[in-house]
Amino acid sequence: MTDYMRSIWLKDGVISYRDDVEIPPLLSGEALVKMQLAGICATDLELMRGYYPFEGIIGHEFLGEVVEAPDARDIEGQRVVGEINIACGKCAACEVGLSNHCKNRRVLGISNHDGVFAEYFSLPIENLHAVPEDVEDESAVLTEPLAAAMEILQQVHIRPEDRVLLIGAGRLGQIVARVVMRTGCNLRVLAKYDKQRKLLAENKIESVIWREITPASMDCVIEATGSPEGFDLARQAVRPRGVIILKSTYKENINLNISTIVVDEITMIGSRCGPFAPALRSLSNGDIHLTRLIEATYPLNRAVEAIEHAAHPGAMKILISNKL
Amino acid sequence: MTDYMRSIWLKDGVISYRDDVEIPPLLSGEALVKMQLAGICATDLELMRGYYPFEGIIGHEFLGEVVEAPDARDIEGQRVVGEINIACGKCAACEVGLSNHCKNRRVLGISNHDGVFAEYFSLPIENLHAVPEDVEDESAVLTEPLAAAMEILQQVHIRPEDRVLLIGAGRLGQIVARVVMRTGCNLRVLAKYDKQRKLLAENKIESVIWREITPASMDCVIEATGSPEGFDLARQAVRPRGVIILKSTYKENINLNISTIVVDEITMIGSRCGPFAPALRSLSNGDIHLTRLIEATYPLNRAVEAIEHAAHPGAMKILISNKL
Repeated sequence: MTDYMRSIWLKDGVISYRDDVEIPPLLSGEALVKMQLAGICATDLELMRGYYPFEGIIGHEFLGEVVEAPDARDIEGQRVVGEINIACGKCAACEVGLSNHCKNRRVLGISNHDGVFAEYFSLPIENLHAVPEDVEDESAVLTEPLAAAMEILQQVHIRPEDRVLLIGAGRLGQIVARVVMRTGCNLRVLAKYDKQRKLLAENKIESVIWREITPASMDCVIEATGSPEGFDLARQAVRPRGVIILKSTYKENINLNISTIVVDEITMIGSRCGPFAPALRSLSNGDIHLTRLIEATYPLNRAVEAIEHAAHPGAMKILISNKL
Repeated sequence: MTDYMRSIWLKDGVISYRDDVEIPPLLSGEALVKMQLAGICATDLELMRGYYPFEGIIGHEFLGEVVEAPDARDIEGQRVVGEINIACGKCAACEVGLSNHCKNRRVLGISNHDGVFAEYFSLPIENLHAVPEDVEDESAVLTEPLAAAMEILQQVHIRPEDRVLLIGAGRLGQIVARVVMRTGCNLRVLAKYDKQRKLLAENKIESVIWREITPASMDCVIEATGSPEGFDLARQAVRPRGVIILKSTYKENINLNISTIVVDEITMIGSRCGPFAPALRSLSNGDIHLTRLIEATYPLNRAVEAIEHAAHPGAMKILISNKL
C-alpha cells in the first residue's frame, strides 16, 4: 500500500485526475476499501454544475474490497457495496432509525466525505454490505441505484392493476422500470432515445410517446428526468387522487399550481436513497439484470474521459475500473 | 310556493341580493330543497375574487328541508345536508367510485350549478343525507366542512404518537383541529388571532407561536391558510419523510424547491371534500361540537352584509338563515 493514490478531484466545478491524494486515514469504526468498480451517476454530473458545494473526490456508486478494518478484522478481504449516508447516530432522525436522513450526515462523494473515484476510500463498517458470491461485479456496482429504485416500493404501494407511467428512461429510469415492472402493474415508459426504448423492449417493458397518454389517467407517475418539463407531464398524466413520485433532484425550482394539487387531491412524494438488502437479494436471485445498461468501462486514469462520456445526452451507465 | 325567490347572485366578482330569480326547475333524480341555514366558506369569498369563473347563486354549505322530490316522495319533508359535487356517473372517475373527482362534475354554488344562498335550490337526491334528530340545526349546517376536515384522516394515517402541526386556525382550521385531536396525536396549532386561540383552548387544543416550533420536527403538518407563507412554514416544520397536508386552495402559484422535497423524501398531499356519513355520526354522538364557532347569523335579505362580515380578518363562522 502506498501513501498516495490516484483519484478524481472536484474543485470549483472542474474535475481533474490527481495521483497525489493521500489515502484517507481511518476514523474509529471505519474500513478502508479498495475500489474495484465505480458507477457514474447524474448526481456526479450535477455536482460539477454546482448542485452542492463540494471539493474533493467525487463518486458514490461502488463495488470494492475491504483492505483494512481495525474494528472488524473478519470483514477484511470481503467484496462489498455500501450505503452512502454517513450518519451521526445521535440526532432525532438517527434515533428513530432514519439514518439516511441524519441531520448531520456526511455523504460519500457528495458532502463532507471523499468518494469512490479513487484507488481507496473510507466508509463506516456499518455502511458496508457483503456481496453474495453469485452476484457478478458489474451487477454489484449498481446496487446503490437499484436500492434507490426500490425505495419507490418502500414508500408507495404499487398494485398489480395500477396504471403506472415512468417519465425518463436514462440510467436511473431504466433501473426503476425493471423494479416497478415486477409489481405486475401496467407500466409504460416515456423514453427519449431509441437506445433507451431498445433496452426497455429487451425486458418487455412498453415504451410510449406522449400523445398516447390519456390525460389524468395514471394511478401513479414516476418522474425520473429531474426537469420542470418532466414534472409538468407527470402532473398532466396523473389521475385525481393519484401519486407522483419524484425520483430525481431538480436543478431549478418549479412553479407549482398548488390549488390543482388540492382540488385533484394529488399526492407528491420525494424519493431518494433506498434499502441495500433487497437490492442485493434481487441481484442474487436473478430477478433483476442490470449489466446490459453498462455502455462502457474506463480505467481510473481515464476517469475524466469516462465522466465526459456519461454527460452525453442519452448515455447509459459508464463505469470506472480500478482493475484495468 | 312562489315562482320567484330571493337569492345572492354573483356576477363579475360582485354579489347582489335579488328577489327575481326563478326557483330552479328539477331535473330527473333531483330534489328541490328549501334552505334553512347556510354557512359562508372561504371558497365563497375566493369566488368573488375570481378563483373560478362563476355567475349565479353562490353558497354550498347548508341545512335544508326537502320540499319536492318527484323520484323519491318518501324524503319530502326530510331535514337534509348534502354533498356538493354533482357527478356525471359515467366518466372514468365515477366508474371507480371517485364521484367527487368526476371529470364532468358540477359543483353546488361553485361551478355550473346554482348554490344555497337562496330560498330554494336543487340537488340530486343521491347527494342528500338525512340529518339525525339529535343533531341541532346549527351543527348540521357545518357538516360539509366537517366532512372536508375528516378527509384528512381518510387520506393520511395520523397516529397517537405523531407530532402534528396545524397552520391556520380560521373557520376550517378550527374544525380540522377538533377532528385531528381525536386521533390522540400531539397536536399544536399556529393561530393568528386571540379569538382563535381562545376557541382552541376551550377544546384543550394547544396553540403555539412559530419560534416554539423546532424546524424539521413534525411528523405531519396540515396547511390550512392557503397562503404561500403558510406553505413555507409547513415546509420548514416537517421532518424528513414527514407529510404535508394541503387543506386550502391557493390564490397564487408557489415557487417550490423540489430538490429538497426529494432529498428529505417529503410527502405532499392535497385534500378537498370528505365523507358525510362519519361527519354526521360525530355530530350525532357528540364527539365533535362546532356551534361555538358560529359568530353571527344573518337573515337571507342581509346576506350581502353577512358575506362582508365573513371577509373580515379573523372572522369565524357566519351563517345565513332562511328562518329569520
